[in-house]
Amino acid sequence: MKKVLAINSGSSSFKYKLFSLPEEQVLAEGIADRVGIEGSSFEIKLPNGEKHTDEVSIPDQEAAVNLLLVALKKYQVVTDLDEIVGVGHRIVAGGEDFPDSAIIDQEKLQKIYDLKEYAPLHNVAEGKGIEAFMKLLPNVPEVGVFDTSFHQTLDSVHYMYSLPYKYYEKYGVRKYGAHGTSVRYIVGRAAEMLNKDRADLKLIVCHLGSGASVTAVKNGKSYDTSMGFTPLAGVTMGTRSGDVDASVLQYIMNKENLDINQMIDILNDKSGLLGISEISSDMRDLENNSDDKAKLARDIFVNRVRQYVGSYITEMEGVDAIIFTAGVGEHDAGVREKVMQSFEFMGLDPDYEANKSNGEKFISKPDSKIKALIIPTDEELMIERDVVRLAHLN
Amino acid sequence: MKKVLAINSGSSSFKYKLFSLPEEQVLAEGIADRVGIEGSSFEIKLPNGEKHTDEVSIPDQEAAVNLLLVALKKYQVVTDLDEIVGVGHRIVAGGEDFPDSAIIDQEKLQKIYDLKEYAPLHNVAEGKGIEAFMKLLPNVPEVGVFDTSFHQTLDSVHYMYSLPYKYYEKYGVRKYGAHGTSVRYIVGRAAEMLNKDRADLKLIVCHLGSGASVTAVKNGKSYDTSMGFTPLAGVTMGTRSGDVDASVLQYIMNKENLDINQMIDILNDKSGLLGISEISSDMRDLENNSDDKAKLARDIFVNRVRQYVGSYITEMEGVDAIIFTAGVGEHDAGVREKVMQSFEFMGLDPDYEANKSNGEKFISKPDSKIKALIIPTDEELMIERDVVRLAHLN
Repeated sequence: MKKVLAINSGSSSFKYKLFSLPEEQVLAEGIADRVGIEGSSFEIKLPNGEKHTDEVSIPDQEAAVNLLLVALKKYQVVTDLDEIVGVGHRIVAGGEDFPDSAIIDQEKLQKIYDLKEYAPLHNVAEGKGIEAFMKLLPNVPEVGVFDTSFHQTLDSVHYMYSLPYKYYEKYGVRKYGAHGTSVRYIVGRAAEMLNKDRADLKLIVCHLGSGASVTAVKNGKSYDTSMGFTPLAGVTMGTRSGDVDASVLQYIMNKENLDINQMIDILNDKSGLLGISEISSDMRDLENNSDDKAKLARDIFVNRVRQYVGSYITEMEGVDAIIFTAGVGEHDAGVREKVMQSFEFMGLDPDYEANKSNGEKFISKPDSKIKALIIPTDEELMIERDVVRLAHLN
Repeated sequence: MKKVLAINSGSSSFKYKLFSLPEEQVLAEGIADRVGIEGSSFEIKLPNGEKHTDEVSIPDQEAAVNLLLVALKKYQVVTDLDEIVGVGHRIVAGGEDFPDSAIIDQEKLQKIYDLKEYAPLHNVAEGKGIEAFMKLLPNVPEVGVFDTSFHQTLDSVHYMYSLPYKYYEKYGVRKYGAHGTSVRYIVGRAAEMLNKDRADLKLIVCHLGSGASVTAVKNGKSYDTSMGFTPLAGVTMGTRSGDVDASVLQYIMNKENLDINQMIDILNDKSGLLGISEISSDMRDLENNSDDKAKLARDIFVNRVRQYVGSYITEMEGVDAIIFTAGVGEHDAGVREKVMQSFEFMGLDPDYEANKSNGEKFISKPDSKIKALIIPTDEELMIERDVVRLAHLN
């Protein structure tokens, strides 16, 4: 039986899922955590519910991949490693070089490393993950699936900043966006649920997790998106500020004697829901919390999502459906309800009863002019499908 | 005959208008330019069309005010300085201390100086202008009219950034907005033209000049506004960037070895229409210019205005009228046309014929669900009216 691995690397961990072909069943999944850091561990979960965790030294990506391959054989998920016919890797930054996922050879691997300036912690770890698989499974195609690719269809009006033009020419400073793999999955699933061709649809995808973005999708293509040059921009997130007047940086840096790298770390790691609430970056901790700042943090989050959805409806001059996905989008009925309320005046007729529970479904009434949906995202499945498509495995 | 002076100070100049009471006729207007700088000059324009310009040394605000008072007598605009019964001053930064215009005494003058951190070049020059009038016209009330006051009605969901809360508590980092005096004038005039009570209206005011902002006004009060902690944020402007991913600052600063003050200067002075087009910060130079970047700059400007208008319609869950004012808003039919187009899908029925010419009027069809208007702004008139109101001159 043929199998495809989907690898979702962070800066010091990677999650994996092994899919069967052509059924797309998940045969095993897990995580190699704290790679290259004290206290690392390797975990594998099997479809029967078994879970095995080893506290084991994982000095580098190659060691992690080796543990994975050994585990797959040990727990009889594969009989022979030859069954693995393709490996897909999520890559954070693809810049303008990768408008689509791609089979990664040495030249493209170098490009991934060259793009590390846009995502220093991620692209290097992801490149090393690919190298490890190239070494350990030398005859298997490696496919890079870039968070930014889906947004390469933005036109210059939407991707250019109002900055001196030379910064685009010299350094590639522009909007790249993120969450593209998730949004691409959602768009396909939404078209199926709406029973329409994606080429005829105007969609807004609210990917609301600890990182959060709103994307306008017109005729199946990304039209505009709230994340920017990096994932810092756009709506309020768990610990990221989203949009902020740039002058604020100057003011705080001068007051607190910070350099720009320290300041951006604060905007990335100590802001957002955590910064406002002073309680938690996790929406679950803020829900039903009577603290004023917890409520303020939730209200600001909802407001910023509303603003982006409203501006994207304007840009597309209408919308067929608004879709909620990712941690908060899939599980926080209160946030969904408040966002939907704002669009009743435009013809969204929410099904507040349906919205009370989670899972893939419509949360607007059948006759609603604008539909609303919950669609749990599945980036790994999208990665698996890109491997199948690009390596011609079907 | 009683008269009121309205003073609109910049960092090194001030414009003035002298109004008659109660007719509000402009009896004289002009500018003291390059105050404290080589090459200064003083200008006065009279209602009969006469204009006098003196190239004269103006070392400080007091010298400028002195020239003004001498000129008013010399050209017989006033017979006696006692006729001037009030002076109003535009002040850029009022922080949270000035939710309305105010009679300025020594204590309030000190507050204006204390707020200089929010607008270093402006508040000090404006404070000195007030001091000069206090000295030269000691018995005349001085009224401060703050750009920020009108926006003090924003609630915390709209004025707070998604930053660590302590920066608000320690340093007052929040959205203050600007153009408040202009927007307040527009709201009053729009209510008259729409023949409705402002308390029943949802308005969006597009103040589009070399500085540009979009403000949502609900029930006569500012509800949200695109400028932020400073006037750098929001839509694309003549030389200001408007919104930009904060990470871009880090990237460019590290690449070009700039400090934050240099970077913010670039965002304020070399970005916006000028930065994108590499031609001009002035929309008139970009209109009908076939250069690709000139067109891109115009398109981006229109797009960002659309985005804010769309997001504010969402925030207010509807809008009665969209109003265009200030240099570009009053004179650029092409920009108005393109912005209006975006809202046809919501029920705006533009009168494109009426839009071809300028001047105060409706530019939507009579039955349009959402109205569109041009209203030339008049900040000096608003300043005069605040003087009359607060000094009880009527």
